[in-house]
Amino acid sequence: MKELFVIKIGGHVIDDEQALNSFLNQFAQIKVPKILIHGGGKIADQVSKNMGIAPNMIEGRRVTDAETLKVVTMVYGGLVNKRIVAKLQSLGCNALGMTGADGNLLSAKKRPVKEVDYGFVGDVTKDDVNQDLLKALIDNGLIPVIPALTHDGSGNLLNTNADTMASVVAQRMVSSHKMNLIYCFEQPGVLKDIESKEVIQVLNKKNTEQYINEGVIHSGMLPKLKNAFEAKASGVNEVRIGFYGELTELINQTGGTCII
Amino acid sequence: MKELFVIKIGGHVIDDEQALNSFLNQFAQIKVPKILIHGGGKIADQVSKNMGIAPNMIEGRRVTDAETLKVVTMVYGGLVNKRIVAKLQSLGCNALGMTGADGNLLSAKKRPVKEVDYGFVGDVTKDDVNQDLLKALIDNGLIPVIPALTHDGSGNLLNTNADTMASVVAQRMVSSHKMNLIYCFEQPGVLKDIESKEVIQVLNKKNTEQYINEGVIHSGMLPKLKNAFEAKASGVNEVRIGFYGELTELINQTGGTCII
Repeated sequence: MKELFVIKIGGHVIDDEQALNSFLNQFAQIKVPKILIHGGGKIADQVSKNMGIAPNMIEGRRVTDAETLKVVTMVYGGLVNKRIVAKLQSLGCNALGMTGADGNLLSAKKRPVKEVDYGFVGDVTKDDVNQDLLKALIDNGLIPVIPALTHDGSGNLLNTNADTMASVVAQRMVSSHKMNLIYCFEQPGVLKDIESKEVIQVLNKKNTEQYINEGVIHSGMLPKLKNAFEAKASGVNEVRIGFYGELTELINQTGGTCII
Repeated sequence: MKELFVIKIGGHVIDDEQALNSFLNQFAQIKVPKILIHGGGKIADQVSKNMGIAPNMIEGRRVTDAETLKVVTMVYGGLVNKRIVAKLQSLGCNALGMTGADGNLLSAKKRPVKEVDYGFVGDVTKDDVNQDLLKALIDNGLIPVIPALTHDGSGNLLNTNADTMASVVAQRMVSSHKMNLIYCFEQPGVLKDIESKEVIQVLNKKNTEQYINEGVIHSGMLPKLKNAFEAKASGVNEVRIGFYGELTELINQTGGTCII
């Protein structure tokens, strides 16, 4: 089975041009087929502010009203995505930017309104991933670069969690590829201690539960780990979480936190 | 030889949501393979204004400084492109949005600085079009939706005239397809008289020259016609200019101005 990497980057590396260039240089050097999934970072907040739209966050998630959806579509789908694609092209990496709407790559269900109305936010499962399209693109040497946007099939774009998108894409591609899923963020891995930056080398369900009970693992790391464990449970071969500046080490399985 | 339509829409239809939906409904019903190329419209000016960037136009062309390039990338490549793609997907049309950077579809040369420095503006010829990629996408049932953005291969996006992009794409595809190029704009065709809206049914090089000398054809129509005649001279089978609300008539060769 051919290998395939799904690599996700978040806001911190996107906000720092030098860090992003360094990451993309490492990304371009990966010889194995690969998919990049990215969020948007603070640029979306800046653009919202400039346009007089106040960011509305509930429990760390952006509430996406119609105006915010416009900003997110502009920034994630336009500015950030196309800059990454143009940069990768200059590095000899045949990148192709695409939201979930493009080629019907990833359709989502608008999140139902319960206590909170998240607005134009989409939830995805592995069944929503257009595996045939991804296979065709990868087999033709193209490298999909996917921002955190999907669509509902009825003409609406939906803001979608990039961690979850990376997980479901990796899960879906398991039947055709030996899958690797790498979450890149601003820390060297899941930390045992924020001061010393000591990294937890290996996380399984049992010690993760312990770390959560002890308060070592909390807040934003919880949904990320949920996505990571779901990928692992669905047959993704290797799942790692680590520093965006050490992509090569994460690829070589010598850095970050390994999910088993 | 298989038929292929390259259809270009400009700012007026993009600025009018109802008109755009009507156009896209007609576009979706075309049974033959097709490519849509679009500009950005006034939304870019609005976003620029909201962000405190004054639009800078010289001879009807946008001067693209670094800040304006950001706006254009957000609006053309993000907001407008993804809205069109999501809408077309809802109409059963397997649209795939891509700038010239995506898959190296269309690389351009940054316009040299002479009397005017146009900034990040790219010029393209038919040799710059990635025919293999377009063929592969079309053969797989995908419908490329291309905003007026290319790249220089060195990591920079470039604002590029959408009329010219449509012309060079049509010219390049001549060797593999029976080509049709349609320019849609806000008038029923090239007008003999702006008051009566009388349309010039057929334009050849000779009567065009006459109309130009008489002042009937002028300003923005001149570069559009240059692109149209270049397409015709390069072997594009059918070139038409007409109203975006009458796409079906333009496709059926019963509306607009025919370039021969």
